[in-house]
Amino acid sequence: MDIKEILNQKRLQIEEALLHCMLHDEGTLAQHIKAMRYSLFAGGKRVRPILCLAATESLGLDSGPFLPVACGLECIHTYSLIHDDLPAMDNDEMRRGKPTNHVVFGEAEAILAGDGLLTFAFELFSNPELSEYVTDGERLRLIHTIARAAGSLGMVGGQAVDIVSEGKPISFEMLRFIHSHKTGALITASVQAGAILGQATQEQFQALTTYGQNIGLAFQIVDDLLNVVGTAEELGKATGSDAERQKATYPSFFGIEITRKKANEAVDNAIAALSGFDGKADFLRGLANYILTRKR
Amino acid sequence: MDIKEILNQKRLQIEEALLHCMLHDEGTLAQHIKAMRYSLFAGGKRVRPILCLAATESLGLDSGPFLPVACGLECIHTYSLIHDDLPAMDNDEMRRGKPTNHVVFGEAEAILAGDGLLTFAFELFSNPELSEYVTDGERLRLIHTIARAAGSLGMVGGQAVDIVSEGKPISFEMLRFIHSHKTGALITASVQAGAILGQATQEQFQALTTYGQNIGLAFQIVDDLLNVVGTAEELGKATGSDAERQKATYPSFFGIEITRKKANEAVDNAIAALSGFDGKADFLRGLANYILTRKR
Repeated sequence: MDIKEILNQKRLQIEEALLHCMLHDEGTLAQHIKAMRYSLFAGGKRVRPILCLAATESLGLDSGPFLPVACGLECIHTYSLIHDDLPAMDNDEMRRGKPTNHVVFGEAEAILAGDGLLTFAFELFSNPELSEYVTDGERLRLIHTIARAAGSLGMVGGQAVDIVSEGKPISFEMLRFIHSHKTGALITASVQAGAILGQATQEQFQALTTYGQNIGLAFQIVDDLLNVVGTAEELGKATGSDAERQKATYPSFFGIEITRKKANEAVDNAIAALSGFDGKADFLRGLANYILTRKR
Repeated sequence: MDIKEILNQKRLQIEEALLHCMLHDEGTLAQHIKAMRYSLFAGGKRVRPILCLAATESLGLDSGPFLPVACGLECIHTYSLIHDDLPAMDNDEMRRGKPTNHVVFGEAEAILAGDGLLTFAFELFSNPELSEYVTDGERLRLIHTIARAAGSLGMVGGQAVDIVSEGKPISFEMLRFIHSHKTGALITASVQAGAILGQATQEQFQALTTYGQNIGLAFQIVDDLLNVVGTAEELGKATGSDAERQKATYPSFFGIEITRKKANEAVDNAIAALSGFDGKADFLRGLANYILTRKR
């Protein structure tokens, strides 16, 4: 299995679904919709929708009908990036090699583009057309799971604590809190959403949850590593020791070697969680390994 | 029926439910939750939740079990106020006699408080505990209705167009667009949510929708009138002619007298829409009339 090729196929499938479900930038709302589309089609890796669809497929179901749910997850992720980039937050002017939303459309429009995308996600999740493929009860459970993971007890809360902690020395416990909430919660919920759509048993749901939590952790640890190594390279240094001290990261607590081990461990735990799954979970297993080879 | 007294009772009922369902400001997330609570308990009139519960009651059902839905509507309204007040948007420093959210908590926290409240609303709407009182299918329809009304084709879109139009001369058609989207959509959806929870027939749903649309319109026209009269009084003038010209409003297009007539017409239309309802809709009728006597 060439994981890269499958990933590309899935990405294309999601891009197409996003193009299909997203509003068109015409009429009175043209500028607002243009702002939403700008960030939605700015070259995201589509990790969350891919995880959602892959979880459904690991249970032997066709994920095709659930593309609107996958698109909703990407809308939530995109909104979070737009708001995180705002001057009052991380104040980032570039993302994925392009000017950030507020740089192009202004702050007011960027805030509203984020609000619009977040709300649109719930419109997608509750789309009546999905009723043919998933029970209403399962859909409510899916909405509740995602809302909880995306909100104050999940992603939004993680970002709030990250903002408050900025520039202050934080404990490893706090770093874990920020990671697991800001990034981990929505990644886990994406896998859980796929599990619900795939009619997982309670045991399968738990296994996929463990997979999602470990994938989220691995993803964040590798991100920390890439930040340190990236910064070290920019500084022309062999190690990231200076860069590490600037911000609390896994390497700043454990050094690069142990951090690499911890990333490997998380990936191993993710794969181990799928021991009860057959070959249909191979893509999820491959995806876990692929995280370790991730580049900026 | 003393409408003011009933309104006060309902407000207290909603305040209590909000206190009950809202997260407590403890632990790592204390500051973030404090920011959400600050605006949620800043003396709102609770118009949207009251309309929702009253619509359910007009159909003969007990609205008590649906308080979480009503609370969710207030969370959406509150989030919209927090984001509207931001420096990049309307840049308001005071609301209801208190400093706005970003003045107290900073811009980053205010953006996140809004994001958290919006997301929390969908957590409330999808709360499993409601399954006892409303079918899952009805709940999905409710979520879809509210998401659509609150999003880019509704409230968020109205605000986006309002921001873009600021300081420019706009047509009456555009003013209507802004009114019906920015304010009208969520008010109408609140009534529709109550109709769905009250198991309205298609005909009843349509009647309550017409009621909601006209209530929303009346509400906004009276708001325009209060703005003009308020500003005129501040300027020590008998009429609002100067103030009217500053911003496109109903009075700026029609003058104060015709605007008053239009507010009366909208209220009449709202009440007429309920002609097929019995005495259980009297509170909705009284509420429509009450809007005309509204003060700042």
